[in-house]
Amino acid sequence: MTTPAAVAERALLFEVAATPTPGNVDRERDLADLQFDQFLAGATGARAGLDQLALGSPLGEGLESAVAGMAGAAGTNTQFGSLLLLAPLVRAAASDRTLTPATTSDVVEETTVDDAASFYRCFDQVDVRVDDPPAEMELLDVRRGADAVPAVRERGLTLEDVMASAVDRDGIAAEWTHEFERTFTAAEWLAERGGPSPDRAASVHLQLLAEEPDTLVATKHDQATAESVRDRAATIDPDDRASVRTFAEELVERGINPGTTADVLAGGLFVAMIRQEVSA
Amino acid sequence: MTTPAAVAERALLFEVAATPTPGNVDRERDLADLQFDQFLAGATGARAGLDQLALGSPLGEGLESAVAGMAGAAGTNTQFGSLLLLAPLVRAAASDRTLTPATTSDVVEETTVDDAASFYRCFDQVDVRVDDPPAEMELLDVRRGADAVPAVRERGLTLEDVMASAVDRDGIAAEWTHEFERTFTAAEWLAERGGPSPDRAASVHLQLLAEEPDTLVATKHDQATAESVRDRAATIDPDDRASVRTFAEELVERGINPGTTADVLAGGLFVAMIRQEVSA
Repeated sequence: MTTPAAVAERALLFEVAATPTPGNVDRERDLADLQFDQFLAGATGARAGLDQLALGSPLGEGLESAVAGMAGAAGTNTQFGSLLLLAPLVRAAASDRTLTPATTSDVVEETTVDDAASFYRCFDQVDVRVDDPPAEMELLDVRRGADAVPAVRERGLTLEDVMASAVDRDGIAAEWTHEFERTFTAAEWLAERGGPSPDRAASVHLQLLAEEPDTLVATKHDQATAESVRDRAATIDPDDRASVRTFAEELVERGINPGTTADVLAGGLFVAMIRQEVSA
Repeated sequence: MTTPAAVAERALLFEVAATPTPGNVDRERDLADLQFDQFLAGATGARAGLDQLALGSPLGEGLESAVAGMAGAAGTNTQFGSLLLLAPLVRAAASDRTLTPATTSDVVEETTVDDAASFYRCFDQVDVRVDDPPAEMELLDVRRGADAVPAVRERGLTLEDVMASAVDRDGIAAEWTHEFERTFTAAEWLAERGGPSPDRAASVHLQLLAEEPDTLVATKHDQATAESVRDRAATIDPDDRASVRTFAEELVERGINPGTTADVLAGGLFVAMIRQEVSA
């Protein structure tokens, strides 16, 4: 039997194997500090935590275990954003195989303060690039990791609350808060497009990139850079592989790595595969 | 914590990602009827069975579950040979993290008639290319799958016995029977060679190919073809990537797919990673 955890792991692997995905690691390209094999290892390391999530462990615990397993196996942060997106999707799929935005949002609404504490502890496992939080959120800066947990408990924040507080500056938080809109849209695009699944995935990566500025790019560089990448992506025909490759070269040369877009693609692949619209 | 099952899955993924591996699917090449993504899916599908093996299920049951999961996820036979090699290695590693030829052979010696029955049932899950067995073994032809189980039980054959009966015509059976000699040698070669792990793996693939005729090639083509591939591989310097790629083109053109060599490489990667000699 295929479990949601196996499908989630496969989504992580299909995401990194989708080629070309401009600016991100793919089957044809390693980045200077991120190699393809690290993503493969990261996925196998995350699997035990994904299994826990599918079996009904508290969401924060399963996420923490997946992230720790990923970081241990990959030796770096390869797929934290993807796992944060996949965690509620796996949980929703495990209880309702007709996975929908509503069933996934139910999982978000049920998150607890303990889930938020687990989420903060994840940041002790990985280096994550995030923006400075607003002044009133300083004690809750995710980069404080476990040190922020007392403040989380004192304010009684659930993981849903924590994600809602970052909705304007983080694409994954936006998905959590807005019913996983882009994730489900990506799944529809994957289903609509014909052809072998790796080609569909590469094409949808470009569509996502053309749709909204990538928040990881906005954080590492600035909002204008993220918008320019979006505008440039919008000019490219996904079927024109040569243009896509030229664009990929440009992004790599400029050190631009649209990681949030890759995360949303991984989420979309998961939804599409659970709905059996995209096969292996 | 990294479990032997996670490491085994990673070995499957690192094997298919090792590039170039002449004649086999790798990061740069799909074959007409075997795609890279099918190997990724196959590995995630096998994981639950590998977990069972690590947790102490009967060897045959864990193997059967891994093979069924692989075939279901990949839609074809991507890694049956590798799983057959990995099953006793995972079991040995789960009980003795200083994995040796002797501890692995102990697992082989402990196999039962039930394990043999499970092994035969695996062949109902996958299409496997094997030679005709000798006349006295006709009832035990693996291609009969579950239909051969009564004969297995009547003769009281353990999985060790079944593998010993194929030692002369199957490279995996030879490993089971001869203390996993090539698998452990591959692990030593992986450890000795410097450089990033995907490069080591590609280099060791060529070394293995140059050492012995691949039994899958001998089965699909003939012994002379398998020997010619071995002799040709022996002339190539693994560090001369251009020559390796020319050789790869030749094999693909001739439809030669040295799958047993890939299986032994997967086993070697597992042993090397369990011994922490090759990192992600």
